[in-house]
Amino acid sequence: VVTLRAELLELVPDEARVSDGVSVLEGHSADLTYHAGRMPDVVVFPTSTEEVAAVLAHANRERVPVVPYGAGSSLEGHVIPVAGGIVLDLSRLDRIVDVRPADLQATVQAGVPRSALNAAAASHGLQFPVDPGADATLGGMAATNASGTTTVRYGGMRAQVLALEVVLADGTVIRPGSRAVKTSAGYDLRGLFVGSEGTLGVITELTLRLYGIPEHTVAVRASFPDVGAACRAAVAMIGSGVMVTRVELLDAETIAAVNEYMDRTYAEAPSLFIEFGGTEAGVAGDLEATREIAGWEGCDSFEFETQQEGRARLWEARHNSFFALAARSPGKASMSTDVAVPLSELPAAVEFARARADARGRNAVIIGHVGDGNFHVALTIDPADPADLEDAKALNDELVEFALARGGTCSGEHGIGLGKIAYLEQEHGDLIPYYRALKRLFDPNGILNPGKILREVR
Amino acid sequence: VVTLRAELLELVPDEARVSDGVSVLEGHSADLTYHAGRMPDVVVFPTSTEEVAAVLAHANRERVPVVPYGAGSSLEGHVIPVAGGIVLDLSRLDRIVDVRPADLQATVQAGVPRSALNAAAASHGLQFPVDPGADATLGGMAATNASGTTTVRYGGMRAQVLALEVVLADGTVIRPGSRAVKTSAGYDLRGLFVGSEGTLGVITELTLRLYGIPEHTVAVRASFPDVGAACRAAVAMIGSGVMVTRVELLDAETIAAVNEYMDRTYAEAPSLFIEFGGTEAGVAGDLEATREIAGWEGCDSFEFETQQEGRARLWEARHNSFFALAARSPGKASMSTDVAVPLSELPAAVEFARARADARGRNAVIIGHVGDGNFHVALTIDPADPADLEDAKALNDELVEFALARGGTCSGEHGIGLGKIAYLEQEHGDLIPYYRALKRLFDPNGILNPGKILREVR
Repeated sequence: VVTLRAELLELVPDEARVSDGVSVLEGHSADLTYHAGRMPDVVVFPTSTEEVAAVLAHANRERVPVVPYGAGSSLEGHVIPVAGGIVLDLSRLDRIVDVRPADLQATVQAGVPRSALNAAAASHGLQFPVDPGADATLGGMAATNASGTTTVRYGGMRAQVLALEVVLADGTVIRPGSRAVKTSAGYDLRGLFVGSEGTLGVITELTLRLYGIPEHTVAVRASFPDVGAACRAAVAMIGSGVMVTRVELLDAETIAAVNEYMDRTYAEAPSLFIEFGGTEAGVAGDLEATREIAGWEGCDSFEFETQQEGRARLWEARHNSFFALAARSPGKASMSTDVAVPLSELPAAVEFARARADARGRNAVIIGHVGDGNFHVALTIDPADPADLEDAKALNDELVEFALARGGTCSGEHGIGLGKIAYLEQEHGDLIPYYRALKRLFDPNGILNPGKILREVR
Repeated sequence: VVTLRAELLELVPDEARVSDGVSVLEGHSADLTYHAGRMPDVVVFPTSTEEVAAVLAHANRERVPVVPYGAGSSLEGHVIPVAGGIVLDLSRLDRIVDVRPADLQATVQAGVPRSALNAAAASHGLQFPVDPGADATLGGMAATNASGTTTVRYGGMRAQVLALEVVLADGTVIRPGSRAVKTSAGYDLRGLFVGSEGTLGVITELTLRLYGIPEHTVAVRASFPDVGAACRAAVAMIGSGVMVTRVELLDAETIAAVNEYMDRTYAEAPSLFIEFGGTEAGVAGDLEATREIAGWEGCDSFEFETQQEGRARLWEARHNSFFALAARSPGKASMSTDVAVPLSELPAAVEFARARADARGRNAVIIGHVGDGNFHVALTIDPADPADLEDAKALNDELVEFALARGGTCSGEHGIGLGKIAYLEQEHGDLIPYYRALKRLFDPNGILNPGKILREVR
């Protein structure tokens, strides 16, 4: 019999780029979280849209599952080939097609990491601001509608994607969007593929917005008597028109974990890490406005840094919070919750999360993207103890129930993947039939990243 | 035989709200443009989502066309009942459900005009910034993905809509989105209904973002040696991080038309009308940065105003440009082109438009939303002269061809409606089969606003 690998070698005639070597399969069998891995049958490394189209057309005829793979940094099992088949590793679609400073935009292939685009943009004084933490690929970031610390100012991926090249399940290539900054031409297919997690099509190229790097940037760390005061201060800053580019919350216990890990003495109180950027005069005005607003909410410590090095030092606690957690729990797997709630509900949601984590005796750090009402409870899980995983999931259940009861969402930014399918059904039960119809429309044979977003019904 | 009106009175039992009176039918037969009107058979004024659902379920069973109607201010014939049937006038769904300042959001019924939401938000120091000019309804603005002068800063409607209540063709009510500011939960149906122009469902309720009203605002009028210099200055201002909230271009001939109409002596040169807002210090810094950038591009007149009254006076020429055109052409119908191009292509596109309008001997004003690469050539058309309409359409054909060849779009903000169907086919021929599939999925009997966006195929 002809093997799948041999068939694929007809389409991608390069032994090194169609691999079933164990180490390559293993390297594409898992993500960075608690989700159980599974080996694919073969990993293909296409170098062109045509190769992606050829592989998909073949897989579609033969009913072979295909899982698109970028940097493998997503957090809900998106890249795990739960039904086996082909993993399509897009990391060699790594060409920055062009950077057009006069248009404030760039076109890149899907496998370009965000750091590479930022390096190319920086030489024109421009930046691509979406910052999910990891150095993800831009195709992967679009596929999961990634966002992160700068969303409060710039929006997430859906706001940045002007145009896409997408290969559909049958190998058809379509190009939704345009190079115009705005359009009202036809149904928003571009926005539909953003966040579709590789289940409706494979993104091969993207045209993205770029932004000026602010002339001046200030970083602030401010601590507050309680989580509510910190959150209210953040919302007041945003509402006042201060040019907030980041505003992150760490709760008191998270600061304590960082102190322990880094041997620091930061005040163990709910703290905001704030950044704003603009002209020199604008930033100076924003700093005063921020300090005043923080004062209204009883801020008892307000430090700021204007120079690059000082800013990096000031953000240290935020950046090290996940490492602080990992250091407390060597050898454990990680899980991150991801609910978002309306801004006014955030204090109660964060306090509820801390109380429930404590009640369950769980080691947890809590980090909030306060401007988006989105926060993560990062947990560690003993991979050898199924009851531990069940307990962590039960905590997440509680947080999702709390968020949905207040008009929130089960996923602010990580997406559904494998881990939140039941939550999506809770949140949008009325929409599931239409989700399924969209899936059938674009992927009638169900080959594209099966088992993600929607429960498999065969 | 039972008439349609009698059947609808069973569902909406109020004689005054199910009308086939000639004046009511006439009042719902046309829009504000050159598009030929057509009388509906009946106009229904629902006051609840349940009534909308009942009317749609009935119409779907009986295969009666239904055209949703807000303020009637759209510009591509969206509200014209070209196949007769029911016009669903949503203006009595006019309740502001709630304004939640601590969440920076509000929930409104679809028939609420944007002025009413702004009045309610202003008492909390907040605003709903999307400004298409007309006092459109928020449901209509979402249905057409409206934008306008403030898009450069805040984005258009798709960026503001957090959640929707939508009634589908069969009367099913769905609620895509949530009250969280961001979400990655499931396929983006919310974004799909935004801009679907009433062809996939009828929007009955919206949850929208609100923004702080900037403490200080400055308006600037700056004139330049040529359109290219004006456009480059605008892009440089945006790229520099100045908090531009509006940046509008009028070409020299448009200023001349305003001078003639208003008896003014504005410099008859390409001019930018710029507004920026923020803290007092920020605005002062932005004003200096703006002046410096304008200077690089040879700006020969730079005026600014910081007070409300002075700002209004300064924007006078921009606000009166369409009236100036109408005054030159009494009794004529209007047409507005709507292409958008990448920012670097805007000068050439505007100059091409002026040259072609002049070559055709057409009276035209040209207004650009420079930060979006979107501009309008407003034309007047003799309704009694079919050749005049053909000539105006031929001009639009030329502009669309020019824009598409440069990666642009046929519609920056007005939508497709009746007037741009052929252009949409030119721009997104590859997507039309999927648009049709989406239409069949949500409206299998084709009752919803037939003949808009997509050519009717029966």
